[in-house]
Amino acid sequence: MKFKVKLLGIEAGGKPIIVMDDEYASLMGIHSSDRVEVTYKKENAIAIVNVAADFPKNTLGIYEEVRTKLKVQSGEEVEVRPAERPESLSYIRDKILGRRLQGSEIKMIVMDVVERRLSDVELASFVTALHIRGTNMDEAEALSRAMVDTGQTLDFGKAPVLDKHGIGGVPGDKATLLVVPIVSAAGFTIPKTSSRAITSPAGTADRVEVLCPVDLTSEEIRAVVEKTNACLAWGGALDLAPADDLFIQVEYPLSIDPLLLPSIMSKKKAISADYVVMDIPAGRGAKIKTIGEAHALARDFIELGRRLDMQVHCAVTFGEQPIGYAIGPALEAREALSTLMGEGPVDLIDKATSLAGVLFEMVGINNGKQKANGLLKSGKAEKKLREIIAAQGGDPSIKPDDIEMGDKTAKIISEEGGRVQWIDNRAVAQIAREAGAPKEKAAGVLLRRKLGDKVAKGDVLFEIYAKSSQKLDAAISLAESLKPMGITERFGEKMLMDRIPTKIPHEKPFILER
Amino acid sequence: MKFKVKLLGIEAGGKPIIVMDDEYASLMGIHSSDRVEVTYKKENAIAIVNVAADFPKNTLGIYEEVRTKLKVQSGEEVEVRPAERPESLSYIRDKILGRRLQGSEIKMIVMDVVERRLSDVELASFVTALHIRGTNMDEAEALSRAMVDTGQTLDFGKAPVLDKHGIGGVPGDKATLLVVPIVSAAGFTIPKTSSRAITSPAGTADRVEVLCPVDLTSEEIRAVVEKTNACLAWGGALDLAPADDLFIQVEYPLSIDPLLLPSIMSKKKAISADYVVMDIPAGRGAKIKTIGEAHALARDFIELGRRLDMQVHCAVTFGEQPIGYAIGPALEAREALSTLMGEGPVDLIDKATSLAGVLFEMVGINNGKQKANGLLKSGKAEKKLREIIAAQGGDPSIKPDDIEMGDKTAKIISEEGGRVQWIDNRAVAQIAREAGAPKEKAAGVLLRRKLGDKVAKGDVLFEIYAKSSQKLDAAISLAESLKPMGITERFGEKMLMDRIPTKIPHEKPFILER
Repeated sequence: MKFKVKLLGIEAGGKPIIVMDDEYASLMGIHSSDRVEVTYKKENAIAIVNVAADFPKNTLGIYEEVRTKLKVQSGEEVEVRPAERPESLSYIRDKILGRRLQGSEIKMIVMDVVERRLSDVELASFVTALHIRGTNMDEAEALSRAMVDTGQTLDFGKAPVLDKHGIGGVPGDKATLLVVPIVSAAGFTIPKTSSRAITSPAGTADRVEVLCPVDLTSEEIRAVVEKTNACLAWGGALDLAPADDLFIQVEYPLSIDPLLLPSIMSKKKAISADYVVMDIPAGRGAKIKTIGEAHALARDFIELGRRLDMQVHCAVTFGEQPIGYAIGPALEAREALSTLMGEGPVDLIDKATSLAGVLFEMVGINNGKQKANGLLKSGKAEKKLREIIAAQGGDPSIKPDDIEMGDKTAKIISEEGGRVQWIDNRAVAQIAREAGAPKEKAAGVLLRRKLGDKVAKGDVLFEIYAKSSQKLDAAISLAESLKPMGITERFGEKMLMDRIPTKIPHEKPFILER
Repeated sequence: MKFKVKLLGIEAGGKPIIVMDDEYASLMGIHSSDRVEVTYKKENAIAIVNVAADFPKNTLGIYEEVRTKLKVQSGEEVEVRPAERPESLSYIRDKILGRRLQGSEIKMIVMDVVERRLSDVELASFVTALHIRGTNMDEAEALSRAMVDTGQTLDFGKAPVLDKHGIGGVPGDKATLLVVPIVSAAGFTIPKTSSRAITSPAGTADRVEVLCPVDLTSEEIRAVVEKTNACLAWGGALDLAPADDLFIQVEYPLSIDPLLLPSIMSKKKAISADYVVMDIPAGRGAKIKTIGEAHALARDFIELGRRLDMQVHCAVTFGEQPIGYAIGPALEAREALSTLMGEGPVDLIDKATSLAGVLFEMVGINNGKQKANGLLKSGKAEKKLREIIAAQGGDPSIKPDDIEMGDKTAKIISEEGGRVQWIDNRAVAQIAREAGAPKEKAAGVLLRRKLGDKVAKGDVLFEIYAKSSQKLDAAISLAESLKPMGITERFGEKMLMDRIPTKIPHEKPFILER
């Protein structure tokens, strides 16, 4: 059936949507969410139909995504035909029913996801079914490969390629800003791509961006790696495993993350990694609560790595409190830079040198951690970070004090004396976000006490930094209600942990970071 | 944050969507699918955000749904604030994780569905989780009650109210057009509301619409029932259990139907039914394949009815072939009218009088079927149907030959002799849909042979009616490829039932009809 085009001049968030009036939709036997094939001259596009009651008859409302594909103008005529349901839909249905999917079936689903042939409803159903039914290792491998194959890959012509990844969940984790310069200072190639924060107060890309640009093209990354053996780039614009970004768009509102393994491993494969150290923070308040869970996940990472020709070692790290003292992009960049310059928190140094050490040992160097420590102490790692900053277009002589912090600040005071017995990671992260992080880089939380530290009544437990008094006030009142630090003389003496429903149980914030 | 309104002048299919540029979304820490509260003067609305890359900065694109709520004009200023995630989202998440939901939790989900506070992604995930995890009877009851409570209810001030419902799946099932006049001819109240076809060639509302208007308001229905003790109305515009229509919008693309029981029973409860006969067609090619399955479903209907204060009896009916000979709205209306006038197929008469008979016996009349037969044979049921037609605004003197049938016709001929051993319901339905039904009322299929009938080579098996030669040709070629009737001398002599993959397995069309 022929329709007259009306350009709507709006994007539909990447989805190929067209709008049709209900009468003509009904004539064609088309329902909302059905797919149609729209043909204009020699171009054609598969689009998903929105049926509207008050839309001009026999007119096709076209969003930008479809206009770009068809190169059509308002007033022109297009042919519209009902399109077949994509084959992948029957595999999604199979997964709903609990069947294990074949590699070729998974490939078809991922291709249809990337080519936007599946609606949000179908994608949400697939992700939900994956979450409930689970994926076995064959499926995880097929998902990883399909995600790599439907995106760009980077090959640096250097071997071996080393990489570091953390599954996230612990605030203040700026270890990557140390591991990358330490490893590359030893002459190894470590082209690190990172994401921005989704649910946390800072992602590695947000932290690095305080020091230099991170939004590099593949060519720019290649040039930076050529020059410095390393990079600290944002992976988001590189089209590495683009299916993952589309999955994240539905996982985030649903607070589920069934694609953790394929998501991470496909991104490692897409940058041609040979050796990967995988950081799994464990403990109360981390994503992984127990060493046992950490081991199970580690086995899966190692096995999936093996299937994808990558050697993976996992490091289970202490995840019961933030790493270092700083939480928020600018505060963390400062702390990382200071640490490379010789003054930093013990736990951050220990974590970074341990992870770098694991990578060194994977490629045959003895006493890896000792070597990492040497590179840090000698200033070689600092020099390397400055080379990377320069190569990415930042100021290589940047000093910690050059980094701007929020000028609205507040000190949170202890109401009792004792020792810090626990720190609630999620509460700290929420407070930093309430203060404006990660969007406002200068916002965040600076701890003044950590686990085991002595506290007197009236001591400062932590400081909040914000750009506006409004956000500062919001963060203060959140801090007062969440009470993220537990102070007692001895652990285990405060017996009442929670009281329900007198204290309304907060929904636990969901950590999507990978 | 303040935004300038840009009215988009398009509906978003009932969803409260607003569009925002990515830079300002990022400033506010808002992702696509997040909810915001938009305030204009004293009005405010919760809306779901679409983030667009190329949208004017600091401008809020407003779809019709939100404009109607806020009564705002282009260029005016509104205040936008991030909104809380609805509490119901955490219950959806609980269901994903496999927890049984409390009544109050289900109520909150259904309220948020009806008030459009949940996005398509969230709704799809809920329906998928319901399908995989299942619902127990407590949940089904809570879903039914919540669906009733969030919609309109009709009370006719008469008791008892009788009703008939079929779970669908068998083409040509026009029994309702006989049951309603038979039951009301006996003096009982039976205010029947029906749906239009979703995946089938005709729904009861489509059939009745050939005889008289069906799109009545609640007041019109009340008047018709007052006058005739009955009605045959379309339920779609009455806002009875409106959540169901929103669930259907996501169930349909996913081809799943986890809400069958609450969906049906909430609509019965909403019209204040006291006694319900539930038709469960069983057999190959029906929704329910075996008597055992039918019994399990019947027990659930009866128990759910008991919990909702309705007495339900279930009738398991033979579902292995279409009812009567006609498939398609006009063809079926003709056949129903002829049957009421004294000439009709044995199976249709048997089904309609059996179902009416069950209702009679439920209210204490002995030999219900005999009574139903008497009302049919005496012409009292015909007279009653004509009263209903008149009361709904149709022509009470309509004759079968007045009903227009498609003027493009084709006869499908048997290539062999024998007897009709099977008829593929789904194939017959698909052919009728391909011919144009239900949108083109005059289109459909007219069987010339049914199960057990003798067939000689060259005999007509069925005829196809269409309004255009194009649709007729499409239906003919579908008929040739699907071969909906099996002709052999004796059942079970043709041994090869399917060959895979030489014959590519068709995806079975999904039956959503309730």
